[in-house]
Amino acid sequence: MSETLVDTVEIARLSTADGDFETRLDALLAWEGVSDAEIQRRVHDILAGVRARGDSALIEYSNRFDRLAVSSMAELTLGAERLEEAFVGLPEEQRDALSKAAERIRSYHDRQKPESWAFTEADGTVLGQQVTALDRAGIYVPGGKAAYPSSVLMNAIPAHVAGVREIVMVVPTPDGVLNELVLAAAHLAGVNHVFTIGGAQAVAALAYGTETVPRVDKIVGPGNIYVATAKRAVFGQVGIDMIAGPSEILVVSDGGTDPDWLAMDLFSQAEHDEDAQALLVSWDASHLNAVEASIERLLPTLEREQIVRQSLSRRGALIHCRNREEAIRLINRIAPEHLELSMADPEALLPEVRHAGAIFMGRYTAEALGDYCAGPNHVLPTSGTARFSSPLGVYDFQKRSSIINCSREGASKLGRVASILARKR
Amino acid sequence: MSETLVDTVEIARLSTADGDFETRLDALLAWEGVSDAEIQRRVHDILAGVRARGDSALIEYSNRFDRLAVSSMAELTLGAERLEEAFVGLPEEQRDALSKAAERIRSYHDRQKPESWAFTEADGTVLGQQVTALDRAGIYVPGGKAAYPSSVLMNAIPAHVAGVREIVMVVPTPDGVLNELVLAAAHLAGVNHVFTIGGAQAVAALAYGTETVPRVDKIVGPGNIYVATAKRAVFGQVGIDMIAGPSEILVVSDGGTDPDWLAMDLFSQAEHDEDAQALLVSWDASHLNAVEASIERLLPTLEREQIVRQSLSRRGALIHCRNREEAIRLINRIAPEHLELSMADPEALLPEVRHAGAIFMGRYTAEALGDYCAGPNHVLPTSGTARFSSPLGVYDFQKRSSIINCSREGASKLGRVASILARKR
Repeated sequence: MSETLVDTVEIARLSTADGDFETRLDALLAWEGVSDAEIQRRVHDILAGVRARGDSALIEYSNRFDRLAVSSMAELTLGAERLEEAFVGLPEEQRDALSKAAERIRSYHDRQKPESWAFTEADGTVLGQQVTALDRAGIYVPGGKAAYPSSVLMNAIPAHVAGVREIVMVVPTPDGVLNELVLAAAHLAGVNHVFTIGGAQAVAALAYGTETVPRVDKIVGPGNIYVATAKRAVFGQVGIDMIAGPSEILVVSDGGTDPDWLAMDLFSQAEHDEDAQALLVSWDASHLNAVEASIERLLPTLEREQIVRQSLSRRGALIHCRNREEAIRLINRIAPEHLELSMADPEALLPEVRHAGAIFMGRYTAEALGDYCAGPNHVLPTSGTARFSSPLGVYDFQKRSSIINCSREGASKLGRVASILARKR
Repeated sequence: MSETLVDTVEIARLSTADGDFETRLDALLAWEGVSDAEIQRRVHDILAGVRARGDSALIEYSNRFDRLAVSSMAELTLGAERLEEAFVGLPEEQRDALSKAAERIRSYHDRQKPESWAFTEADGTVLGQQVTALDRAGIYVPGGKAAYPSSVLMNAIPAHVAGVREIVMVVPTPDGVLNELVLAAAHLAGVNHVFTIGGAQAVAALAYGTETVPRVDKIVGPGNIYVATAKRAVFGQVGIDMIAGPSEILVVSDGGTDPDWLAMDLFSQAEHDEDAQALLVSWDASHLNAVEASIERLLPTLEREQIVRQSLSRRGALIHCRNREEAIRLINRIAPEHLELSMADPEALLPEVRHAGAIFMGRYTAEALGDYCAGPNHVLPTSGTARFSSPLGVYDFQKRSSIINCSREGASKLGRVASILARKR
């Protein structure tokens, strides 16, 4: 990645009318998260170390990678009281904002709870499905600058709503730095205890268990390439959530939204990091010009100006299409993490949206609201994986068991069918 | 694996009262599906070959691995008409049994369909979740002896019920052998077309697409170690189902079920293959003796006697526990793929079962019924993964999009909360 400062944004302009449109769009969307052989080897060693030596390996790796000097797991453990203390100690304004966000997230996720069901057939046979929660969930929270309290809420609250008995959080503390807001969020979200460990060693501890860290059934939460590589390696041993790529937004505008607002929406995505992707689609060419002018004008006012310039230049685009139908085709082709329908009648378009992580509708729904506190989860499928996956939800912390209870008569009827199929298998 | 014939079954006897019980149980349950570096390398080469050269690589690999001599993809493609022909051409008894099974499976899965939902807050803000189907699903069906028509029904019907637009099936035809019952099942299950390809090359074709094979959004279905390794490698590019280990059953008996029936239930699991696991738990020691005697007596009557002897000796066990409470602890510790509650009052125990793929209740519900036609899916989480995963279902072929539509008032209220949280992230 270039470290030079970028002074002009050269945000790509594409048009569906161009002969090379498909090729250029492919290139723009291309993303493959790869962990090279060296990272694989290191992660493998760390996993094997924790599996074989448990706590002592955890202490050793944490001292080495997070520059700590601890000698026992007690120094890497925070109980429920410590989390409550962090919450109580917050300035009132922050405590209220965090509580309000937690309440909205909880209330939205409450509606995702599926019910067990069963039905009885004429011959008395009962069939159904029983929904149960995971026993233990592990929440990975990145440390340092990447530690977001909202991320704790978004990962832990669905687990708590699902009825998970024990929620274990891990968060590394590089150089011993603890984030009080993150601990306060853990308290609000129902986290039972926190281990201040991170990296592949934390994933290994959660997947295999150690003398101190309980083995969990599923590990969720974002992390760097070591964490992602470790999660992929332990998949099967435990459940994992999707491995996230860079964040992206696709805004579709009918031309009626203030170009400055749209520029700000694109910025709020682009400022995540240099790989973030912000795309705007419209069938109004002059509107695209106006948004481009807004971008140029507003960029110098941004705190994270350089990051925004880099991500817009490298991965952003303003795309002109012929009409609404083409815009819909683009949405479903791209399957964006965040989709913003900035238009007068977003409801009309909604039934045709087949693939998107979260859909922000109308002129007032800036994507940033969804990141923090609207209620829906901000852990969303990236890089086109909305084709086959969902936002993180209560369903990620529950599973189902089939129920079959045959009556004597039902068993005899089914037995006849089964024996014919069994003979010819 | 030893090829010597086994003449006596030495099925392990365990008791929770033994000092080494936990250690022995751990050893019994231990299973790790590993693909060695050589398999990894071969699979990687095949994936890269199909990705780079598409159809021509598919033809080349299929000729080599399945001993074919085809020169075009047309020879590896079967359309909807060919599937219907296979169905129409079946003997009536088979056609009826297959239709009956398909109808029961469809009717059960119809009840799994989740609904989209939304609600409006006091300030006019709308939040909700929209459920949509995958565009394309790929069903992998093993060829040769392992081709089960019921497996086609179990994998494809949930996709069809979910509303998947295009269901693509792949099934290798080693030495050109086609299984008409498998094609007939594909017709009944709503498969759109079949490619007679298999192995890692079929997984690659479904994940990346070729000139002829459409890229799918998710690949499901069982396969050998090459297929499993390829599925793990393309995970992220497409969705995959769980990677299955050997099949297992845990029977819990209150002592009142005919020991011969229980022996047959254990056999029906053990006969799958030499790695299959059949466990019986009871608090009635004399009952366990009776079942052991039934096993010895009935074994010589079995068609697959040698396989059953091997799997019972290697991985089977009769486990004595003190009481119902201990049985429940064992169930949740083992998290079995198949759980049989062979007892007078299975309903009383059901709420305490937290982890199991499918639960067969009462004295008449032999697990084999569930394998073919009871209705619930026979694709179930193995090797303890019922701790965090579910039977294959309609939900595996659908995903959700969050819906957020803020009113002007709602956006302003949420904006205040978001800005406080954003400042301190």
